[in-house]
Amino acid sequence: MPADMRVLDAEADDFELALEALLRYDDAHSSNIEDTVRTILDTVRSRGDQALVAYTNEFDRRTVGGAADLELRDFHLARERLEPDLLSALERAAARIRVYHEKQRMQSWEFQDPDGTSLGQQITPLERVGIYVPGGKAAYPSSVLMNAIPANVAGVSEIVMVVPAPDDQVEDAVLAAASIAGVDRIFTVGGAQAIAALAYGTDSVPAVDKIVGPGNIYVATAKSLVFGKVGIDMIAGPSEILVICDGATDPSWIAMDLFSQAEHDEQAQAILISPDAAFLERVSDAMNNLLRDLPRKEIVAKSLSSRGALIKVRDIDQAIAISNRVAPEHLELSVANARSYLPRVRHAGAVFLGRYTAEALGDYCAGPNHVLPTSGTARFSSPLGVYDFQKRTSIIECSVEGASTLGGIATVLAQAEGLTAHARSAHYRVEES
Amino acid sequence: MPADMRVLDAEADDFELALEALLRYDDAHSSNIEDTVRTILDTVRSRGDQALVAYTNEFDRRTVGGAADLELRDFHLARERLEPDLLSALERAAARIRVYHEKQRMQSWEFQDPDGTSLGQQITPLERVGIYVPGGKAAYPSSVLMNAIPANVAGVSEIVMVVPAPDDQVEDAVLAAASIAGVDRIFTVGGAQAIAALAYGTDSVPAVDKIVGPGNIYVATAKSLVFGKVGIDMIAGPSEILVICDGATDPSWIAMDLFSQAEHDEQAQAILISPDAAFLERVSDAMNNLLRDLPRKEIVAKSLSSRGALIKVRDIDQAIAISNRVAPEHLELSVANARSYLPRVRHAGAVFLGRYTAEALGDYCAGPNHVLPTSGTARFSSPLGVYDFQKRTSIIECSVEGASTLGGIATVLAQAEGLTAHARSAHYRVEES
Repeated sequence: MPADMRVLDAEADDFELALEALLRYDDAHSSNIEDTVRTILDTVRSRGDQALVAYTNEFDRRTVGGAADLELRDFHLARERLEPDLLSALERAAARIRVYHEKQRMQSWEFQDPDGTSLGQQITPLERVGIYVPGGKAAYPSSVLMNAIPANVAGVSEIVMVVPAPDDQVEDAVLAAASIAGVDRIFTVGGAQAIAALAYGTDSVPAVDKIVGPGNIYVATAKSLVFGKVGIDMIAGPSEILVICDGATDPSWIAMDLFSQAEHDEQAQAILISPDAAFLERVSDAMNNLLRDLPRKEIVAKSLSSRGALIKVRDIDQAIAISNRVAPEHLELSVANARSYLPRVRHAGAVFLGRYTAEALGDYCAGPNHVLPTSGTARFSSPLGVYDFQKRTSIIECSVEGASTLGGIATVLAQAEGLTAHARSAHYRVEES
Repeated sequence: MPADMRVLDAEADDFELALEALLRYDDAHSSNIEDTVRTILDTVRSRGDQALVAYTNEFDRRTVGGAADLELRDFHLARERLEPDLLSALERAAARIRVYHEKQRMQSWEFQDPDGTSLGQQITPLERVGIYVPGGKAAYPSSVLMNAIPANVAGVSEIVMVVPAPDDQVEDAVLAAASIAGVDRIFTVGGAQAIAALAYGTDSVPAVDKIVGPGNIYVATAKSLVFGKVGIDMIAGPSEILVICDGATDPSWIAMDLFSQAEHDEQAQAILISPDAAFLERVSDAMNNLLRDLPRKEIVAKSLSSRGALIKVRDIDQAIAISNRVAPEHLELSVANARSYLPRVRHAGAVFLGRYTAEALGDYCAGPNHVLPTSGTARFSSPLGVYDFQKRTSIIECSVEGASTLGGIATVLAQAEGLTAHARSAHYRVEES
């Protein structure tokens, strides 16, 4: 079925153009969606709980009587209802994610000038954070762990989760993950109306300082529109994997690694690069075999044929250079001595070194976050982390002597900029000699 | 002239409402400006240098013949044309800013599980960064230092500065600051067309990975529209200062500190909080006296009357609580034992401790960045820093044993999420026992 997957040769004349075409995807601005979302945001902002209940009943086919019913107070009980194997897997994954993220905590620091002036930065956690979790069939407990644990490790005072409950259903695995990750409150609301409630607050839902978590186009648009009033995480594009293989890994492993991205959605991107043309064929054959009994085979086939590619390169160095052009969300270096190539990787969300490090292990339980920069944004942005839930405040404490020195410099600069009050304010602190 | 400045009592019944009204400011979405900016972005994106030259000639009243003339190759010579006092002040400020920011550099780290699996994060600098610098009369060399030095310290390979040259004029101080701060290339373009050139690249202007720096509403709108294609810094609102004083600082000092924010623009906000009502009056008197011979007195008076306030509180603790509500860009603690209050400051861009630490010293030369979160965004964001020019890549390298353990956990979780390819990819790495 992925017979129509693109095959490119990095040595071909038109490779640059072909690569550009491969990476392009439709992220067109939709004024219609934006207008709809603006209306929802404005309505929840002005009418609060009443609007939140009305939208929820309409969009999620529910018959909630009042806003108080939107809060799910007994979500911790979901842990007891979960299969022991699944509960244990969630707990073990959470423990590993916590260990990794604890190493990210920023610490306050300060230093003193010889003249006694102190400079530093004070780290504080965000006070209240909102986590959006998609509902319905695509319920991902791993996403709850990955978004909530960094906030919890940062020391956020209150983590508020929103998750839609279409037809009154929420997955126990999602609730159990919330309980394990340290979520404080859960409201069963979704869509743009949930983002509005978190950004502006209603009588029932407290306003938060930052909103993170994946969602559909309405949720993403709402997040981008409330940005500034609250913080948001990156708006994610389709998921991507780029695998570089020297040809010595089992072709079935590589085929399945490519599938594991492609099964996310039809826009997801899976690219394999190898200097071994015969290996590319073996992986292609393996894909044809393995695809047959994959439950999500239609999605995988569509993703591979529209956005997948097998790229033949001269050598691994050329493969790394192409990867740096792509700046992939996930980069698998399925090669001998994988680590030796690491210093040359300039842009990637996460790098998976060696044949045993399947990307799927990172999605769930290796420890690092699975919320990663997509669509080439790894050129300028980073995985979600504890950093995103802490902030820095600059600290300046001038000694009398220090203020005098600095006042002299600042006075000159402020005058040059025509800012007389700045100059005079600085000059007041200059000691007359 | 600031006779009509608001005076509030934190103990009054309507204080909460009054505070809310005080903090509100007009940031209305303008579809007209957005449409204009979209047109400029699209035109530069499709027609490149030709459009860039045409817009520049039209908006900046210039007669540039071709795109090659937009690059300013001899900007380092501006240092020699500068007054020695000003050059020296810029150099001393730059040295201090550099020392502070060098302490912010993130370092790569890695650790190993008992089973031999390695986890870590690799820090890399951004490759190419664009810095927008406003031109004309409001030319701020200090802003060049504050935006470019963190990028330079981070190790960015190429720093590209854009600055409009209306009527062919650019301030030597701005060019000298660029030279001192480590800017690599300068193009004399401004407005939305400059942002378009940096985001998409033209034959002459290289595409960058992130754009930082202040600008007018067209520049800010353009930055928000290209966000995602490139990174951007926060879109700044009006500048703010909140001064907490116990009444024992010279009222003239405090008056001038308030002026130093108010003189930025009519929307700037200056707030003084004190438990000493008589002191508030003395500062008010001092303002009336000092305002008379201030060159920018019209702007200051307008800012103070429309957005300024004197707030009487019960005690310093109440003042700190109000400050945490405001989350000010600049917080001056002009009180005895200022440092003792620091742990209670939860939200502020920068804190200036003690009577000698005028905010203006931080604007120019203390060392910390003067690009700070405004309009309450200090609740969730941080000063510009080296962090903004570095990025993290997660590193995962599983041992055979580690992959087997993780594969077991991931298989359970992936199956629960209905992602079969994830489960199989993980399961391939589980050792059969």
